[in-house]
Amino acid sequence: MTDSGAERREGVRLRLDVAYRGRDFHGWQIQPDRRTVQGELARQCSRLLGREALPVGAGRTDAGVNARGQVAHLDVATDEEALRVAGALPRLMPEDIQIHAIRPVEPFFNARFSAVARRYSYRLFFGRDIFREHEWQVFFKLDRAAMDAAASDFLGSHDYSSFCRTSSLKEDGNNVCVVDLCAFHWQEDSAIFHVKANRFLHHMVRIMVGTLVEIGQGSRPVTAVPEIIAARDRSRSGRMAPPQGLFLEEVYYPEVITDPFAPSPEGENP
Amino acid sequence: MTDSGAERREGVRLRLDVAYRGRDFHGWQIQPDRRTVQGELARQCSRLLGREALPVGAGRTDAGVNARGQVAHLDVATDEEALRVAGALPRLMPEDIQIHAIRPVEPFFNARFSAVARRYSYRLFFGRDIFREHEWQVFFKLDRAAMDAAASDFLGSHDYSSFCRTSSLKEDGNNVCVVDLCAFHWQEDSAIFHVKANRFLHHMVRIMVGTLVEIGQGSRPVTAVPEIIAARDRSRSGRMAPPQGLFLEEVYYPEVITDPFAPSPEGENP
Repeated sequence: MTDSGAERREGVRLRLDVAYRGRDFHGWQIQPDRRTVQGELARQCSRLLGREALPVGAGRTDAGVNARGQVAHLDVATDEEALRVAGALPRLMPEDIQIHAIRPVEPFFNARFSAVARRYSYRLFFGRDIFREHEWQVFFKLDRAAMDAAASDFLGSHDYSSFCRTSSLKEDGNNVCVVDLCAFHWQEDSAIFHVKANRFLHHMVRIMVGTLVEIGQGSRPVTAVPEIIAARDRSRSGRMAPPQGLFLEEVYYPEVITDPFAPSPEGENP
Repeated sequence: MTDSGAERREGVRLRLDVAYRGRDFHGWQIQPDRRTVQGELARQCSRLLGREALPVGAGRTDAGVNARGQVAHLDVATDEEALRVAGALPRLMPEDIQIHAIRPVEPFFNARFSAVARRYSYRLFFGRDIFREHEWQVFFKLDRAAMDAAASDFLGSHDYSSFCRTSSLKEDGNNVCVVDLCAFHWQEDSAIFHVKANRFLHHMVRIMVGTLVEIGQGSRPVTAVPEIIAARDRSRSGRMAPPQGLFLEEVYYPEVITDPFAPSPEGENP
């Protein structure tokens, strides 16, 4: 099993479009003795194929985080296996995973590395309602105009080190993200925060939301975001918003995916 | 501890207005070694009062059934205890129980026996969505006009033996219920069924909904309801709808609650 889409192999690469409710999962990534989305998928794929099989996801969502538009790829050996997985896998899922589509893709398609952008939403509810479980229930009054203004300061290309879990930061890694959507959609008693970027660092959306809510509460100035970004220091940003309000909405891919090893016309890539 | 509101006692009777999400409860009624709503309330009330205390509810909802407007009463010894419960109990609740109000009531108020009517709702969603957990997800096409017509056949005073769990029927009991609201509120991709009656038999709303859905599917005629009611036979009605769509919305009480033992003016009731 490999993450690489460039490996030459016989067989069929499948793309899986997956939604899940994060509450009862320890996140996407497979872990021993813990219920994870990748683990559930791998178990059923392995059962169907009669050998170990591991779907590779576009984003490793954390415990409690939801997805409407997670994408994964899975390699099978033959068209017959592809049909078997496509036909049976959706019906083998537990009630908190839903597979929207399974289809064959180019052999170079890699759910994680081919992605050119991801879009998340984060839901806030203003009040308490035991039946609204996929929102962060916020009780204090928020200054919506301040939050709108601060959200727009995230737009563009910035080093997001201040908005990344410290232990996940790579010392000399590239922490620049290009954010091209960052806005609240307000309703009377709730809000949806939309954010799209070419890439996201670990915990980035939840720290952005936590910081924006602190601005909305008035405990930080409306001009705080550029200063926090410039500091490149996690201790300068706000608390992390809880996981249940976060949704991975969509993963974006180029229309045509080419072989990243660009084989010469003479023959196979060695 | 007694169910009776007529018992003479020192102390204060409190009314509790309670909402809960049924998913993780084995229903309202306290049971050994099972998580129940009454059990959670009793545990915290007993802790606060330093002795066994059991709130008595208006309706014993089944496992998985939700409530927005459950009502319970609880006896405490003194005003100080009443204040202690009112102040602390709401904050001691787990995240799936919410106490909306606690207030002193007349000593004859009995959450169960003083109630003159109850109102339930039942939610349907037409499709599949892993984030809509408090609805029955129905995939087949429904004839809305047929369901509206059939629902109206429930209005009035009828023997509901056909809409009661057989093992809960009392052989020579009174199974007549007076239904004064029974209607669907349709939305594009969902529906809410509203029903109000002076009393409900065990499983009654869920069997009504299951039967109405079968009429909507066309597997029973639109005229089926009067015949099923007349049969007084559970085997004639439809399957029972699942619990998660059901909400106990409201319990109705008379404006003035009088002593059911009507003591003579001369003195205490013996």
